[in-house]
Order: sequence, then structure tokens, then C-alpha cells
Amino acid sequence: MSCSFGEKVKVTIFGQSHSEAIGVVIDGLPAGKKLDFEQIEKFMSRRAPGKNKFSTARKEADLPKIISGIADGVTCGAPLCAVIENGDTRSKDYENLRAVPRPAHSDFAAFFKHNGFNDIRGGGNFSGRMTAPLCFAGAVCMQFLQDDGIEIGAHIEKIAGIKDERYDSVNVDFKNVKEKEFPVLDDKQGEKMREKIEQARLDADSVGGVIECAVTGLPVGLGEPMFGGVENVISQAVFAVPAVKGIEFGSGFDGSDLKGSENNDAFSLSEGKFVTETNNHGGILGGISSSMPVIFRVAMKPTPSIGKTQKSVNLITREETEVCVHGRHDPCVVPRAVPCIEAAAAIAIMNLR
Amino acid sequence: MSCSFGEKVKVTIFGQSHSEAIGVVIDGLPAGKKLDFEQIEKFMSRRAPGKNKFSTARKEADLPKIISGIADGVTCGAPLCAVIENGDTRSKDYENLRAVPRPAHSDFAAFFKHNGFNDIRGGGNFSGRMTAPLCFAGAVCMQFLQDDGIEIGAHIEKIAGIKDERYDSVNVDFKNVKEKEFPVLDDKQGEKMREKIEQARLDADSVGGVIECAVTGLPVGLGEPMFGGVENVISQAVFAVPAVKGIEFGSGFDGSDLKGSENNDAFSLSEGKFVTETNNHGGILGGISSSMPVIFRVAMKPTPSIGKTQKSVNLITREETEVCVHGRHDPCVVPRAVPCIEAAAAIAIMNLR
Amino acid sequence: MSCSFGEKVKVTIFGQSHSEAIGVVIDGLPAGKKLDFEQIEKFMSRRAPGKNKFSTARKEADLPKIISGIADGVTCGAPLCAVIENGDTRSKDYENLRAVPRPAHSDFAAFFKHNGFNDIRGGGNFSGRMTAPLCFAGAVCMQFLQDDGIEIGAHIEKIAGIKDERYDSVNVDFKNVKEKEFPVLDDKQGEKMREKIEQARLDADSVGGVIECAVTGLPVGLGEPMFGGVENVISQAVFAVPAVKGIEFGSGFDGSDLKGSENNDAFSLSEGKFVTETNNHGGILGGISSSMPVIFRVAMKPTPSIGKTQKSVNLITREETEVCVHGRHDPCVVPRAVPCIEAAAAIAIMNLR
Amino acid sequence: MSCSFGEKVKVTIFGQSHSEAIGVVIDGLPAGKKLDFEQIEKFMSRRAPGKNKFSTARKEADLPKIISGIADGVTCGAPLCAVIENGDTRSKDYENLRAVPRPAHSDFAAFFKHNGFNDIRGGGNFSGRMTAPLCFAGAVCMQFLQDDGIEIGAHIEKIAGIKDERYDSVNVDFKNVKEKEFPVLDDKQGEKMREKIEQARLDADSVGGVIECAVTGLPVGLGEPMFGGVENVISQAVFAVPAVKGIEFGSGFDGSDLKGSENNDAFSLSEGKFVTETNNHGGILGGISSSMPVIFRVAMKPTPSIGKTQKSVNLITREETEVCVHGRHDPCVVPRAVPCIEAAAAIAIMNLR
Repeated sequence: MSCSFGEKVKVTIFGQSHSEAIGVVIDGLPAGKKLDFEQIEKFMSRRAPGKNKFSTARKEADLPKIISGIADGVTCGAPLCAVIENGDTRSKDYENLRAVPRPAHSDFAAFFKHNGFNDIRGGGNFSGRMTAPLCFAGAVCMQFLQDDGIEIGAHIEKIAGIKDERYDSVNVDFKNVKEKEFPVLDDKQGEKMREKIEQARLDADSVGGVIECAVTGLPVGLGEPMFGGVENVISQAVFAVPAVKGIEFGSGFDGSDLKGSENNDAFSLSEGKFVTETNNHGGILGGISSSMPVIFRVAMKPTPSIGKTQKSVNLITREETEVCVHGRHDPCVVPRAVPCIEAAAAIAIMNLR
Repeated sequence: MSCSFGEKVKVTIFGQSHSEAIGVVIDGLPAGKKLDFEQIEKFMSRRAPGKNKFSTARKEADLPKIISGIADGVTCGAPLCAVIENGDTRSKDYENLRAVPRPAHSDFAAFFKHNGFNDIRGGGNFSGRMTAPLCFAGAVCMQFLQDDGIEIGAHIEKIAGIKDERYDSVNVDFKNVKEKEFPVLDDKQGEKMREKIEQARLDADSVGGVIECAVTGLPVGLGEPMFGGVENVISQAVFAVPAVKGIEFGSGFDGSDLKGSENNDAFSLSEGKFVTETNNHGGILGGISSSMPVIFRVAMKPTPSIGKTQKSVNLITREETEVCVHGRHDPCVVPRAVPCIEAAAAIAIMNLR
Repeated sequence: MSCSFGEKVKVTIFGQSHSEAIGVVIDGLPAGKKLDFEQIEKFMSRRAPGKNKFSTARKEADLPKIISGIADGVTCGAPLCAVIENGDTRSKDYENLRAVPRPAHSDFAAFFKHNGFNDIRGGGNFSGRMTAPLCFAGAVCMQFLQDDGIEIGAHIEKIAGIKDERYDSVNVDFKNVKEKEFPVLDDKQGEKMREKIEQARLDADSVGGVIECAVTGLPVGLGEPMFGGVENVISQAVFAVPAVKGIEFGSGFDGSDLKGSENNDAFSLSEGKFVTETNNHGGILGGISSSMPVIFRVAMKPTPSIGKTQKSVNLITREETEVCVHGRHDPCVVPRAVPCIEAAAAIAIMNLR
Repeated sequence: MSCSFGEKVKVTIFGQSHSEAIGVVIDGLPAGKKLDFEQIEKFMSRRAPGKNKFSTARKEADLPKIISGIADGVTCGAPLCAVIENGDTRSKDYENLRAVPRPAHSDFAAFFKHNGFNDIRGGGNFSGRMTAPLCFAGAVCMQFLQDDGIEIGAHIEKIAGIKDERYDSVNVDFKNVKEKEFPVLDDKQGEKMREKIEQARLDADSVGGVIECAVTGLPVGLGEPMFGGVENVISQAVFAVPAVKGIEFGSGFDGSDLKGSENNDAFSLSEGKFVTETNNHGGILGGISSSMPVIFRVAMKPTPSIGKTQKSVNLITREETEVCVHGRHDPCVVPRAVPCIEAAAAIAIMNLR
């Protein structure tokens, strides 16, 4: 537990926002698979910053360099290591933050956890930038999952209170969200969300939201009762994405208001296959996959970094003070977090099979 | 992952609803601690069934028998094993369920996972009864945590849409909920919830709800970034409790509708101690404990077992059919799940220290 | 790490020599297997004490009671828990040992590890008695392995310097050692060993020895490079057996005196199957199984408990003193350890597949 | 298990002999430690090839590049990643080995494990070159251990049957072996070993040997009974070093020929400290450290790569054939393996504390 996840396909992530590089080691991948690196880069570009006014101005090449694990163009059974260089770093932006933690950021906790020796530059290893190797690992895992007919897709379900439609949880239609610059099912609602984000940017403020993710094509029977259930494993992976503060499966929190007769999903046969007629269980029964789509939603808090002056404390002088975050930051990280949630789901599923 | 949780204090749970017994092994407890077994039994009685009309009629002594780990009345450093006998079992109630799975139950997934060899009696090892050893383990862990000033308490936050008040997340007042037969902060709201449960019982239906849990007294700095954060670890533990379908920390899903300027918690000094003035972060920053109370809420689906006839399928003959669950079952498991959530939190915290 | 072993089939052992009971939880066994309990008891009886004058006089029923994991007579996918009661205990024999540790025993280290709270009775959880649940787990694993044509057998290779013959490492012939009261390949040598043991008993002394174990029928390709190799995993399991102080694979320590041209095993074809003509590699190349028999030998120190007066210290008064061990003990544990080594190998192999 | 070791300080090694680079991630190091990189490089140079005629001609810069984990010159609590580039590779040397495995090498097992997709160049991730990142990790761990007074040293105990003296196991004197080009205690014996190695080189053959390692300054009480003992953990780490085929602690295999009255170590007081008068137990009692020096020896087989023509098989055509290894190789890897064994011990000890 910590920078590593999984026992079957172990994903180990390393690096800090402003260290020499960041990267990931993926151990346990089957040998003999030709990875589609173009597809991986395309996937990673969905989380890359700097592509439009809604995201931080930091430019990142973010092209992973393969260090090991490939021979003759295919996976060779050795751990796959990829490294992404940290090019465009402006470390001086952060020096003054060591003593004065930014509200809602990791600074405060990291300072005490590491006795003041934590890497403060860019959030160190708490940075959202650590999701780049996570996305690389997720993209790799997805190519193995796709071979077995498993698809993973996510979309923005809500930003600043503006709701997108939800997936049809019985017959999920991913609707090419992965091709969209702004990943929503209903582009009109997406337009309203963008306005909210732009307004937050103008206000030197930020907004949060909810992401919905679906996994289709899973066989029945994945997961273990108690601590190894599909919910346990996916949630352990998903909380690795910074700003995630909640997760719900199937009907989730809304379902807790329903009666059993409303929330229970009737079984039936469809084309010779056992299905449920509704999918309030989110594809998971007793912690085990039911073969229906796994559906979950994650709550993301508004970006902690805002341009407003905020109350804080000086950890050295032990005085109350103020802080104003001047660095680059997104008014809303939800759009860029969509592939991160997919990636977390992918590495979770790889470890459940 | 599976029946075991944790690396520092490893909790391994075994048993099925109708096996000879159920139990737990707790490895890694410090030696030399005199356990208060009266307190443990009191804790476990909070989840015990059969104490009132709101819970299943099954009588369980549920008194754990200590097999190992104690010498001269104190923990001796060896794994602590406790076993709870399964006395009052009526296995014949369940025989007809093997082929016809109950909607929203584990039956369907367990059948395929184990090729039809799963123990169908009482839900086998998917049974809610497995939370008895979980509660034992949690009660043991709590006694170690209390020695360090850490308290864990939970209450019903909602049942059938009826809301209790929430904890003051900055200054948590547990309000003796643990002493109450019906664990709510506001007894008037509790009364309304009870009426909803009674109505569900009369309707042969069931209701769900939300439980709120607080952990106070944590030091700053627990947890690891990425996969070992406080959220990751608590959620992995909490989803071990059957019927849990969601979890949120701090302002959670509601917080995702707020602006950064609203959701960020300002730091200040209080009696020489660094605090936050609000606690939307739920005591967790960057996955690490901030020393503010950890606050989380879990969504519990309505009890799957209801007295109504429901659509199902016959897994052997592969035909559509109906099922009516005649066994004993609670119209609402939320009250009995309150100590289970506390227990899951306790074993999670033990592994974060 | 500690009382648990394995990630695929996790074996968790609990109990102390004089606690209520000892036992084991085995998680991850495939469902649907009818276990042959007669065979398990027969296996366990090979390590049981009290069967002849060469082993301790303590009587143990040692019949494991199945607590969970079986339904309708077959494994059901739930963790299999078995408990063995500790009947015939004479705790008063040991009370005086808390302050004065027995040389070469765990007493000294356990005292400091657990701040004096360790269970001193019978060696607590350091007792050789903890190999009873290990043997149970091994016997269970063996039945799964046998279904795939994998056999495990061990014999005494040496006691007090008297050598048995070794297995033909290319074509292992187990020679019904499991049926023998004194498990050697060459009964004449066994007779000499027995004389040495009897002499040690008369001298109030003890002797040690070496056990050789073979695993046949393994497929090629088990194990992982670096830390997950067959040697790594088997040795981690085998050192769980008390008194083991060394392990070697294939030609082992003797092989380190050979030249490469002597020690290398030439590949050839035999009946269309790739084999090596010799087996100095002990069935393991680069940490990975080669499909040749896995051969290893373990060194067991002489029983630490002897009837002679020995120099020791008083841990409380911090003075030099003497100790004489009056309790029951074997002059040689090697014969009874033979099935323990087989059991350790079995649980290791189960986790390598 | 596999490329990762440890739960407290997790060491993850990646790379292949001829991949872009090799490296290691070390997670769990305390923050705030200034690492002495000069000392690390000095340590690593002890295993580096090409420094004299006894080792392979391959030149390796082997200077690790720090990717992450350091900020302001000290460890910052984030995983420490170091990468070593693979510069001087001659991949064409190995192409013909894919179908025809070298005797005693990993080629055969790796081919089947990875369905023929293993990286054959230089042994892929089975290469002895993977001990370079192991040594880096060990050197880092050693600096933390030294702060607590723990020292680790090893020497060649035997090569080709020529014996060095052994450590005085009660009062270990490391005798500056680390400064020596040929790490033996008795240089005269070392000279004889060198002659044996030179003779093997001239004969296109190879020799093996034994390495003895001591760990001093350990506190009493490290390790866990059963599977987490000091022997279990060290042996799991040490078998990661290629060519290791055996390990023994304390009096080891020789001790199994002794009587209890000879092998037991009497306790006494020395300068107010509890000690044993002899150290046949190798500093480990019941799996737990006794505070006496931990002493162990490992058997290393002769280098599998020899210049002689050997019998082999063609895995593709399934015919018997011959193979002659033309690549660069050491006639004896034992001298270079000495720091590797120290490194394995260091990462083991870091995970036992």
C-alpha cells in the first residue's frame, strides 16, 4: 500500500511534480502483446494540461519513454517501466509555500508527515501530475482488457451543479465521449458547464463535479467477498486520483432512499443470457461482478488552488496569516480527471481477473 | 485481498452463515494489553440480531470464544483468534435458493464464481453474519486506539429519506449514540425512521439509509499518497460490510457542487494547535490525516430480502421464474450496521498508524 | 508476513502450544473439491508425537475440526478453517522458564520481542506444535496438487552424521517412505540413525539432521525472477518449520565446489519431452521451474531441549544462572519434521501456480 | 512477489540486460536523510564488471541517475527511483540463443514461461546485471541502518574448494574486506582462489563458491514467528541473486551433525549485556533476532556460461543439438556477488525493523 497497487498486475508509481521525471512500473503483464502506443498517447493526451483555456497553462510533452518490459516490439514478461520527463517546471513559484500551506491542499499534511522534508515544489508526489503515469498504466491495462471484450468509459456527470445525462446502465452507450474535447454525453449541458468553469476562472475561483464510469463486458464472478470485492478494489484505486472525495456504485446514495422492492433488480433471460432488467446493483452483487455493466460515480471537490486570498497559518512561526496561490492551476480539474478515473478502473479490473 | 485486510494488523475473517462457526484471526497486535471483554461484548451486542422487532428473529449468542493470542489475561503477541459458534441455523430454509437466486443478493454471482459449489445456506460467506467477527476485530482494535486518544463513533444519518442531524464536523459530539437502542443523534427523527421501518415490515418490503461515522483524535500524517491514503484504506475496509454501495468523505458529493472558495477549509490556530475552521476535507488532505476529525458517510441499499414475490431465473433449467424469500430478514439493516461501520473504520485506522 | 503465507492460497496459522486451540485458515482454495479427510489425518499422524519412544510423550488427538469452508462435503470457495484442540497440556512445567531462557530456544528472543508478555507455556506460538496446522494446510494443498499430477515426498537424508541414500534426482522414486514409521530410503541406515537417537536420549542429549524433499510433476514456468522464484518461495515457507537452519537446492553447497562443466545439466530429449540429463539445478533455472523434479535439502539443528544442565541468565535479576529443561521433548525432531517439510513445500507450490 | 520485495521499505526492480535502462523504486524510506552518493557509487563499483581480468569485459558506467525521491538534497518521503542506463550492449551476441537454451541458464525456463516472448538478449530480466539496482537499493538501505549502528559485511568463504577463514561469529571483525579488490579475510587463501579462477578461465570453464555474510548491531526482537522470521526474510531476498542455490544460518548444515549439548549456545552476561558465548544460532532464535551477529552463508553455483561446447536442444525444431556460449562472461561471479549478498541482507533487514 502506498505507491503500489495490485497483486496480479502490480502498478508502482514514482516521481514528484518537479523531480527529474515521473514514471511507473507495471509488473505481471502477460508476454507477447504488441502495445498500440499511438492509442496510449491518445489516451494520455485526454488528461494532458495546456490544451485549452480550461486547464493549466503548463506545457507537458508527457510522452512516456519505455525503459523496460518490451522486446522485439511486444511485452516480454519483464516489468514494464515508463518514464515521463518533467520538463517545464517553475520551481520558484512554490518556495514560499513550505511554511504556509494552501487550504485544501496536501501541503499541511505532507509537511508533518515528512517532518518538513516533503518536496513542496508543485505538490511533490501529491501532485495531480502523478496521474500521468497512472493514465499510462491504465491505457496499457485497457489494451489487455479490450482483447477480452471489456470496455471502460467515463464522462462528466456534473460540474458546478449542471448535470449531464447518465449512462443507460443496462445497455451502456459510450457515445464517443473519448473523442470529445469536453467529455459529456449531452453537449448542450456541456456548454453550460463550460460557462460555469469560465465564470469560476474569471472569479479566481474553482468548481468541482462528478464523473460517471462504466465497465462493460466483464464476466460474472470477479471479486472476492469481504475485503476483495469489486467495490473495495475499484474504490482503493479511484481514491488515488487527487480531489476524489466520494464514490458510489449503481444506485448508490440515491438508492439508499429506495425500498427493496424498488431497488432490487429482477433477473431475466435475454438472448439466452442471464441479465437483470434494471441495474441498481451497478454490476456488483455481494462484491462479485454480475456480468451487468459496472457503474460507479466519483465526487470531485473543486480545485483547491484558487486565485483568492485565503486564511492560513505559518507552520514555522506558528502564526495565522494569509496565502494567495499564484501558480498555474485549473479552475476545474473534472474534465481532465475523466481518463484518470478510467485508468484507475482499468488497473483495478486487471487485478480482479 | 479477500478474507484478509491490512499489513500492520492483519484481520482474517472466516466462516459461513451456517458452518460450524465463524471467526477471525488478528495478527500484529501489541503484546501486554489487557482486553476489556465486557466492552467487546457490549459493542458486539449492538449489531446482534433478535433484540427487537426491527431485526431478524434469529437468536445468536454471538459470544466470541478466544482460541489464542491471550496469555495471563493479556495479549501475548501471538495472533488473536476468536470463534463464534453458529447455533441457531435453519438450513432447510435456503435449499431451494440454489437454482433460483434472490434479486440483489450475492446468490447469483456466488453461484457462477464457485461453479455452483458455493454454500447457499444463509448466504454462506456472503452473509451479513460475517460482520460479527468484523465487529469483534473492530472492538479489539478500538481498545488500542482509545489508549492513544482516538475515538470512533457512528450514527444513522438517514433511513428511508428521513434525516438525522449530522455531526458538527469540527467539534464532534458523539452524544452517547452507542448507548442508544436506535443510534441517532436526534431521537425525534429516529422515531420517524422507526415508523418507516415498521411500515416496510408490514408491506413485506425493506428500506435503506446512510450512516455517518467520525474518527477523532487522529494525529496528523497518517496515510500514504496515491493508493495508501486514508480514503483508500477506509473505503477498502468499509465495502466489506454487505449492502454498502457508496462512501463519501467530508463534504463528499455535496461538496462537488461547491466552489473552491466555499469548500476550502481555512487554517487557523486554536489553543496553540493548527486547525481548520471548517471541515469539508473530512480530516483528510492529499490522502493524509490532517488531525481534524475524519468524517465519512456510507450509503446502504435497502435489504435485498423482502417478502414480496420477485422475478428471477432458474440457473439450472435456464428459465425465467419467480422467487419469494421466506427466511428471516430485517426490513432495515442500517441500525445494526452502525457498529459494523465503526469496526471497519477501527481496523482501517489500526493499519494506517 | 508473519503468521500468513501466500497470495494465491493464503495460509494463516494461529494458536499457542497451550492456548485453547491452534488452527489454520486457508483462503483461495478452488470450490468443488471433495477432500479426503482420512488421507489428511494419515498425513498428520506422521508428525504426531507420542507414537514411539523417539518422540515426546505428549499425547495429542490432533484431529482437526473443520470450522468453515466446506458445504455438502466439498470446498465451497469460502476460507477453510480447521481447529485442533490443545488437550493434554501441563502448563506448570514451564512457569519457571519465563525469567531463565533455555539455550537455543525462542524464549530469549520472544521475551524481549513482546516485553515479557509472550506466552511462555510450551513455547507459545513458537512451539513445534504449530506445525500441526501447517501439516493440515499442506495435506489439503497436496490433494489439489495431486489432481494435477504433482507429488511431494521427503525423507531423512541424515541424522547425527549417518547418511541415507539420496533420491535419484532425475527419476525420483519416493519408495513408499510415507508408509514407514521411520522415513528413510535405506532402512539399514535408518536403523543406525535410530541407535544414535536412542544413545542421545540415554545421554539426556539430542541430535539433528538433514531432510531431503522432492517435488515431481511440476510444469515448466512456475516462479518469477528476482524475489518470486521457486527457491525464494519454498525457502520462505520452509523456514517456518522450527529448527530449520539451512536449505539448498539441487547440488547446493556441494555444487559450489564443482566446475561449470561439471555442474551444468545438459538438455536432451526423452520420449519427446525436453529434459536435463542430470539435475544439479534441482528443477529450478533462473528461479523458474524447469519441469525436472525440484530437489531441496534442509538442515535441522539438534533439538534445543536437552536434559543436561546448561548455562543461562535470569532476564529479570540480570544474573548468570543455570537451567535444566524437565519438560517432555524429543531427542530428535527430524523424523517428525519430514511431513512438515513436505507440507511447507506444498503450500509454497500452491502459491507458485 | 516477483520484482518487488518488502512491505515496510518496498524495493521494486525493473529492466532487462539490454533494455533502455534498468532501475529500482524504493518506497517507504524515512524523509530527511542526506544520502552519501559517493559511498553508494563506491559500493556499486564493488560489483561492477570489467575492473579486472576475472570479470566480464563488458564496460558499464553503472552510475545511477536519481529520478525521484530527493528534494533539497535529502530524501523527501516520495519513492526514490534510480535508473542506470544500458550503454554497452551487444545484442547480436545472443540472437541465436532463443531456440537453443544454454545449460544451467534461465533461457529454457524463461522461453516456456513467456511463450517464447522473453527478452533473450543478455538474459533479459534474468541477467546478473539486475543486481546493479539491487546493490543501489542495498547501499541506500545500509546508510539508514548505519545510523542505527547496524553494519553488514560479507566475504568470499570458499571458491573452487579453497577456503577462506570464517568470521569470529561472536565478535565479528570485518577486516576491511570492503576495501579489497578480492574480498577475502585471508589474502593468502585469496591468492589460491585467484589461481583457480584463472585456471578455469584458461580451461574455458568456471568455478563457484560460498559467501559468508554478517550483520552486526541488530537489536533483539526483529522478525516474526513462522513465515516472517529473520531466516525467512533474508533467504527470500538472497535467492534474488542469480546463481545462489543454498543458504545456511549459524552453524547451518554442519550444525545438523552436532549434538544439542554442542550446538546450543549458553547465555551469559558480558559488560551488563546478555550475550551467548558461542553463536551457532547465527543470531536468530525462533526466527527472531537475538542481538548476536546474524551470520549466514550462501552457496553459489559455478557460472553457467562456459566456453565449452555443451549438449542442448532446439526448442523450435525439437531436436538435440549443441551450444557454445561466445558472449562475455565471468569464470567466477563469486567476488562480484559479495556486495550483492550484502545488499540483499540490507533490504531484508530494513523490512524486519
